[in-house]
Amino acid sequence: MELLKAKIRDEATVLPGRIIKVDGFLNHRVDVSLMKELAKEFYRRFSRDSITAIVTIEASGIALATACAMEFNVPLIFAKKAKSDNIEGGLITSEVYSYTYHRKMTLLINSQWLKESDRVLIIDDFLANGESVRGLIEILKYSGATVAGIGIAIEKGFKPGGKRLRELGYDVQSLVIIDDASQEGIVFRDFDYD
Amino acid sequence: MELLKAKIRDEATVLPGRIIKVDGFLNHRVDVSLMKELAKEFYRRFSRDSITAIVTIEASGIALATACAMEFNVPLIFAKKAKSDNIEGGLITSEVYSYTYHRKMTLLINSQWLKESDRVLIIDDFLANGESVRGLIEILKYSGATVAGIGIAIEKGFKPGGKRLRELGYDVQSLVIIDDASQEGIVFRDFDYD
Repeated sequence: MELLKAKIRDEATVLPGRIIKVDGFLNHRVDVSLMKELAKEFYRRFSRDSITAIVTIEASGIALATACAMEFNVPLIFAKKAKSDNIEGGLITSEVYSYTYHRKMTLLINSQWLKESDRVLIIDDFLANGESVRGLIEILKYSGATVAGIGIAIEKGFKPGGKRLRELGYDVQSLVIIDDASQEGIVFRDFDYD
Repeated sequence: MELLKAKIRDEATVLPGRIIKVDGFLNHRVDVSLMKELAKEFYRRFSRDSITAIVTIEASGIALATACAMEFNVPLIFAKKAKSDNIEGGLITSEVYSYTYHRKMTLLINSQWLKESDRVLIIDDFLANGESVRGLIEILKYSGATVAGIGIAIEKGFKPGGKRLRELGYDVQSLVIIDDASQEGIVFRDFDYD
């Protein structure tokens, strides 16, 4: 998606370890007009899949997923990362490893908010190792809901997550795939969706 | 706001300790159409305040704050709760006590995303003891930005946060104030904004 590529070219910075910082428009300060455009693009790609719910993971996926839920006109469910007092019984959980925080964490969704008839579009801002998405899929499988698709804003093509998920047969649509990133620049993968 | 009151009456449950569970439409599964309506109401209440940014706290405030940022057509900035590898230098932090998680936590915003000329509307799903909002105000003060208003979906009127903030002179607009909550029912405060 050229709009997102341009935004990344203009505003992203790269930290050692191929960490791509886009916290000026995606995951700390959020450009909500851009989120709307990304959501429209996801709608274009998944509108034939009878999506009934958007599922994401707190916290950085929520803004984009909210825009998507508005575009698809379906509820948004966000998986939580820890147990607080305000969540009780009926939880479906999955343990995943966070490469961002270097520790295991537990994702959870209350089973009450997922139905077997649901056709879910998973949305996230980044896909790298794919641990969070793997956890979400585990939760969704347990609930009986169908994973109809996976929409990612920025995929790190040099990490294995996207490849693995596609090999498992999931319809992973990344708006941008980055094959390399350093202080010298960001290398985008050329691919056409259409 | 009658729409939100009706939604709470129909769908909220109350747990011991006056915990009001609204995770079917506000902070686990999110009714994005409702978020749009709440955002319009906040716009009506704060549109004369020349708001240049919406600020909230991850994670449960983000969906509502995203809808608000769209309505005001300004960026959203969400304060983060812990330091991850992807956030570097220039952080403004504030330590607050989380009554939900029973522990201290650190809120942080990268100073890069706040300007002295900013007029900020703080948005959050709940206001109880007001610790998170106090932390945000501390961060915003340090940045030099102005707190133009505070918009809350549900205020717990039996907790001191709202009263304290109003005594400090802040324009706190809660769409619904709950004065008591038990298995027997939820008591809403009667007040007219207009």
